[in-house]
Parts: sequence; C-alpha cells; structure tokens
Amino acid sequence: MTDTQAVVKNILTTGAILTDEALERLLPGTETQPHSIHRAMRHSTFAGGKRLRPILCMEAARMVAGPHSLGNDIPDGAAALGAALEMLHTYSLIHDDLPALDNDDLRRGQPTCHVAFGEATAILAGDALQTLAFQTIAELPAPPAAVVSILKAVAIAVGTGVGADLPGALAPGMIGGQVMDIESGGKPPTADLVERIHRAKTGALITVSIVAGGLLGSAHAHHDAGASADTIARLRTFGEKAGLAFQIVDDVLDMTQSSEELGKTAGKDTATDKATWPAVYGIEQSKTDAAQLIADAFDALAPFGEAATPLKSLAQYLVDRTH
Amino acid sequence: MTDTQAVVKNILTTGAILTDEALERLLPGTETQPHSIHRAMRHSTFAGGKRLRPILCMEAARMVAGPHSLGNDIPDGAAALGAALEMLHTYSLIHDDLPALDNDDLRRGQPTCHVAFGEATAILAGDALQTLAFQTIAELPAPPAAVVSILKAVAIAVGTGVGADLPGALAPGMIGGQVMDIESGGKPPTADLVERIHRAKTGALITVSIVAGGLLGSAHAHHDAGASADTIARLRTFGEKAGLAFQIVDDVLDMTQSSEELGKTAGKDTATDKATWPAVYGIEQSKTDAAQLIADAFDALAPFGEAATPLKSLAQYLVDRTH
Repeated sequence: MTDTQAVVKNILTTGAILTDEALERLLPGTETQPHSIHRAMRHSTFAGGKRLRPILCMEAARMVAGPHSLGNDIPDGAAALGAALEMLHTYSLIHDDLPALDNDDLRRGQPTCHVAFGEATAILAGDALQTLAFQTIAELPAPPAAVVSILKAVAIAVGTGVGADLPGALAPGMIGGQVMDIESGGKPPTADLVERIHRAKTGALITVSIVAGGLLGSAHAHHDAGASADTIARLRTFGEKAGLAFQIVDDVLDMTQSSEELGKTAGKDTATDKATWPAVYGIEQSKTDAAQLIADAFDALAPFGEAATPLKSLAQYLVDRTH
Repeated sequence: MTDTQAVVKNILTTGAILTDEALERLLPGTETQPHSIHRAMRHSTFAGGKRLRPILCMEAARMVAGPHSLGNDIPDGAAALGAALEMLHTYSLIHDDLPALDNDDLRRGQPTCHVAFGEATAILAGDALQTLAFQTIAELPAPPAAVVSILKAVAIAVGTGVGADLPGALAPGMIGGQVMDIESGGKPPTADLVERIHRAKTGALITVSIVAGGLLGSAHAHHDAGASADTIARLRTFGEKAGLAFQIVDDVLDMTQSSEELGKTAGKDTATDKATWPAVYGIEQSKTDAAQLIADAFDALAPFGEAATPLKSLAQYLVDRTH
C-alpha cells in the first residue's frame, strides 16, 4: 500500500465512523414513536453508503480551519454537518427510488425504502430526513452568522435552483436536476443537457458539502465573517469539477459493471435512455474527461498547499475506483 | 357588521394580500426552468388557501413588536416568514393527497397536484416547497440569532417530533402526526389518540406560526435574546389551544357540510374511519370543547392587553365559522 492509499484508507474509515456516530446520535431510535417512520429513516440511512459527502465536508472543514484546529482534529460540529448532508442525500435517494420516479427495488444491495416499508412511509421518511437535516444544521455549535450562511448555501443547493444566480450560490439545485432528469427520459441525450443534469442532480450537493465544511472550518478558526470570498470560490470550483468527475465515473461503472458488483441495478441508465456522459461521449473519452476535471479541481486548491493533500488524495481515489 | 367583524375582515383581507405578494416574490415563475415543478408548486400554493398560518404569524409578530413597531405595521420579514409557513403547509397537503397516502383528487376546489401534474412532479414539488421554506427563513431580514431560533422551532414543529422534549420545542411534529394518522386508519379512535394526532398533524404548524411570529416581532423590538421565555410560553399555549379548537371545528364541518360548501371531498374522515374529535365525542360536545379551548387560549394572552385584540378576534372568528 502506498502512502497515499494509506491516507485515503484512513480518511474513509475514520470519516465513515464519525458520520455513523453522528447519524446514530441524531436519528430517532427505532423504538421512538411513531415507530414505522423512524425505522424507515434508519433503514435507508444505514444501508451501507460510502459517506462521501460527510467525508468531503469534514476534510474541507479541517483544511480551512488549518493550524488553528485543535490537534488537527475535525472541527467541532463538522461530523453533525456531514450527517445532515448525508440525510439530504438519503432523502433524495428514497424519493428517487419511488415507483412514480425511478421505480428501483434495490439500493446499496438492500431493498429500497418503499419496498421495505410501503410507499406512504417512504414518502414521509424522505420528508422527515430533509426536515431533520435542516434542524441539525440550525443546531450546529457555531456562531449564528455562520449557521445562517451554511443554511442558505445548503437550501439553495438542494432546491430547484432558486437564488442560484445570487453571489455565493450554487446553480442549479438537486431537485431541479431530478426534474430535468425525468423530463429528459426518452429524448436523445445532448452534451449540454447531460452536464446541466449532472451539475444539478449530484454536483450541487457534493459541492455544497465542501463549501459548507469550509464555512464551518472558517468560523472555528475565528476568521472574520466566515470564509473569505476567495476561499469559498476555490472550494466551489474544486467541488464542481471533482463532483462532475465522480458522476462520470459512476456512469461509466454503471455501463461496465454487473449489478452484484455495484449493489444496485446495473445498466439502468442505458435501459431507460437516461442522459449520461458515456452515452454522449463514449467510455474512453469519459475517462479522459474525468481525469482532466480532477486536474482542474486540484489547481483550485493550490493556495492551501500541504493542507489540501487529504482532500486531493480522496478525490483521486474516487475517480480511480473500479466499483 | 360589528366592530369585531370589521377588524377580522380587515386582518384576513390584508393578511392574504401580504402573504400572496410574498409568495409571488419568493416562488420561481412559471417560465423558470425546469418549468413543470415550478408550475406545480404555484398550482398548489395559489389554489385558494385562507393563509391562516401566515396571518396568525404576522399578527403574533405585530402584537409582540408592540409600540416599537413602526406605525403599528407588520414587522419587516413577517410576511416572508408567513409565506414560508404557507409553503410548509402546502407541501404537507401535496404529499398527503398522493395516491399512496389519502388519495385525494380535489383540494380547495382544484385538482390536487398529482392529478394536475403527475405523481413524480407532485412528490418533487412538495420536496422543493419544504426546501424553499427553509431557504426563505434563512434569508429573513433579522439578526442571525433570531433566524436560527425561528428555524429550529419550525424544523422541530414540522418533523417527527425529534427534539420536541427540549425546552422551547413543540411536541410532537407534523410528519409524526401524518404517520400516526395513517397508522390509526381502520382502528376505533380513542380520545387520547385523536388529541395526539390533532396536536401533531395540524397543531404543531399552527402553534409554531404564532411562536415564530413572536420571535421575529421580538427581534425587531430590540428586546434581549429574542422573546422572553414567558412570552414564548404564552404564545405556545395560545397556539396549542386555538389550533386544537380550529381542528375540531374543521372535523365538525367535515361531518355536517357538503363537498361543494367545503371545496374538498366531504365526509372523507368518516368514510375512512379516521380518528376525529366528533367521531369520539359527538358533534355537540365537540362544539362545547372548541369554545372552552378558545377561552383558555384567550387567558394566555391576558398580559398583552389591548394589543392581543386582533389575534383574539381572529381566533374567535375561526371557531365561529360555518364553512
């Protein structure tokens, strides 16, 4: 194992443990009334996700907090913020899997929420995870001004794109991407549409995970009003480029791997004519594009020097993965 | 028309106009991409609701801001906060009407969201209204500490009840109430269950509308850290008592009015054996209980004196209504 591989393995293992501890603390127990919804929320949240968004959030928080960060640990509240982002991701998956949307029975190797708990409970479990995510952010141990900045950025990122033209906003939003994805079904995918859907549907939440982590890290480092505009712009560029690269790699894996290797229904995107990067550019060009996007993402973090190594190693690992 | 009737008519008319102006400003236009979801969000939001929650919010804000409030107008941001609460109410109705839940085709005299736009778009439109509500609260023109207090209180009120045992919280939450309502279907309704469902499903959002309005009004009146604990406790008691009274009156009207008079499918609760107050206590006792709850609600506002008249007149009107 190389040094880089060891760093990444440590980040992924520690990050997943910290995220799961935070989720365990924040999600109501299975014996909390009403039972069915809390069981459904936990079923989907603890179905074996990689915790990519929380880990990116915590690493961005640590990088921005810098030498002020006590013992170079993850800043206070970053695990809770990461858990909130994972709740938002899980809520979007639960609703996306519903019969009226993607109608998927299998997710992360487990029955999807509506298969296990029925459609009504799955709809409400998704709703409640969104609510609990915002509650968790509102309760972060950070100055109120930083909490409000994080709340605004996250809400814009997971919405339809409202306010995304404002300075500091991330355009367009996660739900907007889901709608564009539905509307694109059956039409021949174009390059422009594919990029817009990717940036919205998965890119916005990944990007805001990094930006929100930076805002929290900055607040703990006692900088002025949150992070500087330059820091936020650099984190956003890193998130947008790396997020798009992750999605391209996901789409390539969907076309080249079996369902068993992926833990979800493989070839689904092709089968339903969904707009994906490899469908437009082919598999080889997609791999080249992902590598270039990661190089651009790394450039954005240049001013952070050595402190950016964990985040960069993690991104490199994610585009190099084979399943 | 008596003086009280004139006061109430003015509150309802002005409040609905202010709410609609705020919603018009905050909701993306029907020509904003992606079209389908923004049209669906507007279809349900502008389907003729009474704007009860926003109006209660604005009147509570005005009452608490008191003589500090410039020209005794609605405090700055109260209409936007009211609009956010109406978005949350609308999102819950859209999801509640879905085939997997209540399967209702008619709401406020209009086709429900999934009938007009399809199930996928209706699910995502509800999701996006919840997101936009939290974004709107995060962007309120108020000190960050007050914004965070309002956001926490609202998130707890519309969730499953997580954190509802904390001081300042409202137990249990709106989604929790929807789940209890689903779980109760077909079972003989008991008095305890009916009260718990009412307090959660509709009471929590009504109560937090009044509490959040008070927190905003207090922040504008330059009191110390938001409203005093006594003020919040009194607003909460008023909201809980009056909210339960409104729901009892709603259930009585559902049993005694035609669909045409109500603008929604009448007798639905009886038909599906839903737990309602008149199903347990009968219609006459329900009317007596509603009157007693309103009297208790008024007692809680005694220290506000004359400033409480608009809020009290409004509550009285709502339990006296016949459709």
